[in-house]
Amino acid sequence: MKTLAVKTMALLIASGLGLGAGMSSAAESLQDVMKRRNLTQQDLLAAAKTYTPSGGRDEFLAFSSGGQSGQVLVYGVPSMRILKYIGVFTPEPWQGYGYDEESKAVLAQGRIDGKDITWGDTHHPAISETNGEYDGQFLFINDKSNPRIAVLDLRDFETKQIVVNPIMKSEHGGAFVTPNTEYIIEASQYAAPLENQKFYPLEQFNEKYRGAITYWKFDREHGKIKPEESFSLELPPYSQDLSDAGKLVSDGWSFTNSFCTERYVGGIEKGRPPYEAGCSAKDTDYMHVINWKRAAEIARDDSKIQVINGHRVIMMETAIKEGILFLIPEPKSPHGVDVTPNGKFIVVSGKLDTHVSVYSFEKIMDAIKSGRFESKDPYGIPVIGMKDALHTQVQLGLGPLHTQFDAKECVAYTSLYVDSMVAKWNFCEGKLLDKLAIHYNIGHLMTMEGDTTKPKGKYLVALNKLSIDRFNPVGPLHPQNHQLIDISNDKMQLLYDMPLPLGEPHYVVGIDAKKLKPAIRYKVGTNTRTDSEHVGKVRAGEEKIVREGNKVTVYGTLIRSHITPETIEVEKGDEVTIYLTNLERAQDETHGFTVSTYNVHASVEPGKTASVKFTADKEGVYPYYCTEFCSALHLEMQGYLLVSPKGWKPEEGAQLAAANYTETDYKNTLKKVVDTQAVIDQVVGYITSVNYKAYPEVVALMEDATDQLGKTQEAKAKHEAAAAQQDWEQANLWAEQVWQYQVKAADIGLRAKTFLEQKGAK
Amino acid sequence: MKTLAVKTMALLIASGLGLGAGMSSAAESLQDVMKRRNLTQQDLLAAAKTYTPSGGRDEFLAFSSGGQSGQVLVYGVPSMRILKYIGVFTPEPWQGYGYDEESKAVLAQGRIDGKDITWGDTHHPAISETNGEYDGQFLFINDKSNPRIAVLDLRDFETKQIVVNPIMKSEHGGAFVTPNTEYIIEASQYAAPLENQKFYPLEQFNEKYRGAITYWKFDREHGKIKPEESFSLELPPYSQDLSDAGKLVSDGWSFTNSFCTERYVGGIEKGRPPYEAGCSAKDTDYMHVINWKRAAEIARDDSKIQVINGHRVIMMETAIKEGILFLIPEPKSPHGVDVTPNGKFIVVSGKLDTHVSVYSFEKIMDAIKSGRFESKDPYGIPVIGMKDALHTQVQLGLGPLHTQFDAKECVAYTSLYVDSMVAKWNFCEGKLLDKLAIHYNIGHLMTMEGDTTKPKGKYLVALNKLSIDRFNPVGPLHPQNHQLIDISNDKMQLLYDMPLPLGEPHYVVGIDAKKLKPAIRYKVGTNTRTDSEHVGKVRAGEEKIVREGNKVTVYGTLIRSHITPETIEVEKGDEVTIYLTNLERAQDETHGFTVSTYNVHASVEPGKTASVKFTADKEGVYPYYCTEFCSALHLEMQGYLLVSPKGWKPEEGAQLAAANYTETDYKNTLKKVVDTQAVIDQVVGYITSVNYKAYPEVVALMEDATDQLGKTQEAKAKHEAAAAQQDWEQANLWAEQVWQYQVKAADIGLRAKTFLEQKGAK
Repeated sequence: MKTLAVKTMALLIASGLGLGAGMSSAAESLQDVMKRRNLTQQDLLAAAKTYTPSGGRDEFLAFSSGGQSGQVLVYGVPSMRILKYIGVFTPEPWQGYGYDEESKAVLAQGRIDGKDITWGDTHHPAISETNGEYDGQFLFINDKSNPRIAVLDLRDFETKQIVVNPIMKSEHGGAFVTPNTEYIIEASQYAAPLENQKFYPLEQFNEKYRGAITYWKFDREHGKIKPEESFSLELPPYSQDLSDAGKLVSDGWSFTNSFCTERYVGGIEKGRPPYEAGCSAKDTDYMHVINWKRAAEIARDDSKIQVINGHRVIMMETAIKEGILFLIPEPKSPHGVDVTPNGKFIVVSGKLDTHVSVYSFEKIMDAIKSGRFESKDPYGIPVIGMKDALHTQVQLGLGPLHTQFDAKECVAYTSLYVDSMVAKWNFCEGKLLDKLAIHYNIGHLMTMEGDTTKPKGKYLVALNKLSIDRFNPVGPLHPQNHQLIDISNDKMQLLYDMPLPLGEPHYVVGIDAKKLKPAIRYKVGTNTRTDSEHVGKVRAGEEKIVREGNKVTVYGTLIRSHITPETIEVEKGDEVTIYLTNLERAQDETHGFTVSTYNVHASVEPGKTASVKFTADKEGVYPYYCTEFCSALHLEMQGYLLVSPKGWKPEEGAQLAAANYTETDYKNTLKKVVDTQAVIDQVVGYITSVNYKAYPEVVALMEDATDQLGKTQEAKAKHEAAAAQQDWEQANLWAEQVWQYQVKAADIGLRAKTFLEQKGAK
Repeated sequence: MKTLAVKTMALLIASGLGLGAGMSSAAESLQDVMKRRNLTQQDLLAAAKTYTPSGGRDEFLAFSSGGQSGQVLVYGVPSMRILKYIGVFTPEPWQGYGYDEESKAVLAQGRIDGKDITWGDTHHPAISETNGEYDGQFLFINDKSNPRIAVLDLRDFETKQIVVNPIMKSEHGGAFVTPNTEYIIEASQYAAPLENQKFYPLEQFNEKYRGAITYWKFDREHGKIKPEESFSLELPPYSQDLSDAGKLVSDGWSFTNSFCTERYVGGIEKGRPPYEAGCSAKDTDYMHVINWKRAAEIARDDSKIQVINGHRVIMMETAIKEGILFLIPEPKSPHGVDVTPNGKFIVVSGKLDTHVSVYSFEKIMDAIKSGRFESKDPYGIPVIGMKDALHTQVQLGLGPLHTQFDAKECVAYTSLYVDSMVAKWNFCEGKLLDKLAIHYNIGHLMTMEGDTTKPKGKYLVALNKLSIDRFNPVGPLHPQNHQLIDISNDKMQLLYDMPLPLGEPHYVVGIDAKKLKPAIRYKVGTNTRTDSEHVGKVRAGEEKIVREGNKVTVYGTLIRSHITPETIEVEKGDEVTIYLTNLERAQDETHGFTVSTYNVHASVEPGKTASVKFTADKEGVYPYYCTEFCSALHLEMQGYLLVSPKGWKPEEGAQLAAANYTETDYKNTLKKVVDTQAVIDQVVGYITSVNYKAYPEVVALMEDATDQLGKTQEAKAKHEAAAAQQDWEQANLWAEQVWQYQVKAADIGLRAKTFLEQKGAK
């Protein structure tokens, strides 16, 4: 059969890609399909605007908060296909996130009060900016429930850092960046004492509870937040909400709104009206206006700050005295505060008002410069009169929440939660332009690069909350619904319903895909969480197992289709660390690794070194294996962890069973190798006959195939040496190994051939 | 402003849905769009076949393993939109899975050797069957790394049970069901001693290491596996792989294939050829043929079994003696073993062979009945000759893996891993019909209900492993690629590329969506993990906080937009349990719950009771809140956990600060209430003027709105009583609460109105 198999292989390859390649008869016409599926012409147009053919690319990538999943997700626009969930605050085993030692160290940075926090309530992602435009280098995201900010590197889409807010007990208003990513802004939500683990009764709410805003210093070169250069402002015990940084003319300032400036304390269980009644009684709340550039200078002055929980805080009194903190009334329980692309206006939506309120930065500065304040709040913060700051108000509808901007001048879009609509309007002239019904209860919305100085227009995504009746039912917990809307014309057009399978995204940012340049593979031996050379790095042939006392350290490697070492022998109670370096060069040849029932897992992309660690606290035999379907012989990419009783010694002369292969077996295997080489030569012949060098993907595949074939040399030397000694067992097995390398090379070669044929290489 | 806001509201509603509703001008023609997006006519046809307009439903639902994510995902076919990731082996906070007490109890069932396992390597989902057809009631899925099976209930898409395999250390071959779901089949992968925590050196591999197959008894009435009625067969130390149960004529039998029947032990670190060489040296491995119906009888006989780790095992010797276990050679390292819909044939693909091998059940039975065996394996198991069992072999291509079936008689599809193709062929006549190139390296494939007695045809999904060059790059770890293929015509047509954002799915099952009838909401007070009344259930008004020693138990409720209670006062060190019942009746009005930094989270769907539990081991003030964007006043759905020092007593006479509302405030609020009621009456007027009762969704929404309005009565009584006592503070706040209920009723009413207008209600 061996010979037959190889012959057939040759035959099939020589005859091209088989019967069906490139052929396809459409029995149904377009009209038939439209009729069968009840599609209108309008549906077909929407299909054409979103459908992305096999292998096609999306024009924009959207980075979405994963809500209570604690993750970030990435999807393409306009295809609305989700490309990746990235582990951020919640362990996620596919990525090894929280299951290998390197990512555990990232998650450990997010410990609070000495304890692991194994999830997050992510809300608002922000892409790093240069001159107010997305630069596609980093992504920041906050955790509302456990006040934290995470830093993701968009070179490899991995989470690199988590910082814990040192003074907040809750936050909603993160992450927002300043125009050159000098700082990442994070505002508290529910007021609480700033000191850690400090109790004050609710009767002292006005005196002892506080809000705050933190400016996290970002070190772009190292891709890390520097907590020691970060600072906060103490704020009144209002419920601070979202923020936005000024840009262009308003650069240097930031704006943070708030609700429940009533400072109401509920207590429905004691007969008091609930928070929802007391927190929405007043007609206006306060927008906070902060001079962050000046604040940053003040924060460096030891005499002007208080250190709380080891963190530098500018107290309200100082902020007032230094003239860096002001308030402006804003209508009823606002959510979004969004600076227009030109930096001239700040748009606020009061969710219990029907208007958007457009504030003029120029007017605000005028009022501040001339000391024109209408009052002070209970904490002495100067309050600028609404009429002195307003540019215009526009009546849009019920429950306005959040605003984003178009590439077209002066055009904005605001989500209307209660109306379940998107409103298109002109913020210069204060004019409503269009409205579109969506399904249902929209929270945030997002236009492409729509919160930058250079919005890209084209598409808008409505982040709808309740997807009842939109999709096939999947139980009482429904997916959310992101709806894609075409905004390239005067009238908005609904294009696509996209279910969100996991979490409730609160906000999304969309970036021109061309701005992203993710890495193809890592430099061999990289600790990808620290971006440095890994202590466990080894090259092929350098693998070793080191024992020091009861510490066993394995320096291993992974390559199609074996793990080196294939046996790890330890004693019960040993502390085992297994370092694994992926030696592959093909860009998608990821291997995974786990040891059965020891609750560890690593995803090891090409070049990466990752490690798992555990105490071998139970005797027995535990298989380990590659968890990623990496090659035809993937299931054979296995090994055994053997945990023997303490002091166990092998029986003298014990030997592994032999298969008793004969010289005939060996010769048959050699014949198979020769036949297979002929097949490979055919494939290589085709590839080199066309302009394959014009395709970097194919060049990479060829390198990879050459790597695999290169390995045959060593195996060949081994089978020939064994054959010379008439050790047919070893000779046949090493000859089989030569064949395995050939199979892998053929696999890669065929992939390259298919690629070239489909790209029409000549 | 209040009055203005309400007036505007009335105006907007009266004028219908605003400017843009229902209107949409397509500036670009279909031809323009096709040109701009480089779409061919064939692309447009594929778009029409997959695009699902807003609100449209999918014809089939696919349940996919989430691979190393440890989850199950659900997506629609043909839209290929992922609807849900369901938490199974890995904690997932959006669902509260592993973060509330009820789901923690499910995960705790999966503990191994006394330790938590916080992930799984899911492989093969199986839908429960009745008479060999999917019945849409339950889903089963296995964990390769930590041998376990999970049971999901498709009434609510929740994981209800996890069972740990008592004798395996690794498994790949689960889950597969018998035709009436009498048993769920799970086969081991890498051989190991069957005894728990038992060490034997590899030198004793042939003698002490074993494979096994477990038949888990399923109790359909209770939706649970019964471990005490389940049993296993001891098998040789081959690497058993996938299984399938016989059906119709072959019902009562099951088939399990295997690789590495060489029993090779690697050791590349010691100079031995790796597993991949030694495990693929032989030309054939063994299909195991097992009479499970007879085995189930034998397993009940104490004299015929061994109890290993508390589990009933039929040892090989007994199985041979009783004539329930046979082997048949099958070509080279097979993966899939798939019984044809008529039950007559078993299709095996050897991944290092180029053929599929079709075995005849009739011939196998003939051989067994006549005792025609060609040999015995090293353990004495009778081996049926390949030629005595084969119906036919068909040459398909390189790396055949897995086969599924069409609604068309005798038509099968097989994945070709190395070729990166799907082959369509006829298993009756042994004829290749068509081949289609996919991208790339396909593992399993799936046709609609394609592993049942009544396949539905129409679509095929290719589960491709390496998605290089298919999507926008998202870093070195790439998504997998599921490709949708139209199989309704003679020639297969590729329709859609679907990235998998999380995990590497190994297998998918697709079911006619009409067969699924998920529940709309739970009966109030349901523990959804046990499907019984929850001990923490309370109804509105029955909320309470109970203290017993240092144990504090909160019986709370959730409803738009407040949590009862809004304050929980405990002392440091108290053990706190918070039960929460969602009182909503709207089907998608889920609330979430967390206590900041205490690392707990619950998702509480309407009717559900869930609980979180923690020790209040740190003093201070910890906000709690609803984590699901549930209503306009969602952010105000908050409360405080106050952890005071031990023995702390409130200061005498301490009072919460008052807002000092006046009679005028109260009167203004009352006016707002009157105006808002007029708006509501308008909406109700519209709804009742049409045939809204024809729409169950609207009837449910109306019930819900009526619920909200019903609550105004109590709040009204309160504000009137307070006003009578000239307590304007309480009077105004309770009047505000009346308004809040009105706002929610209006929100629901508007949603119903929009729904009716869009459905064209008359």
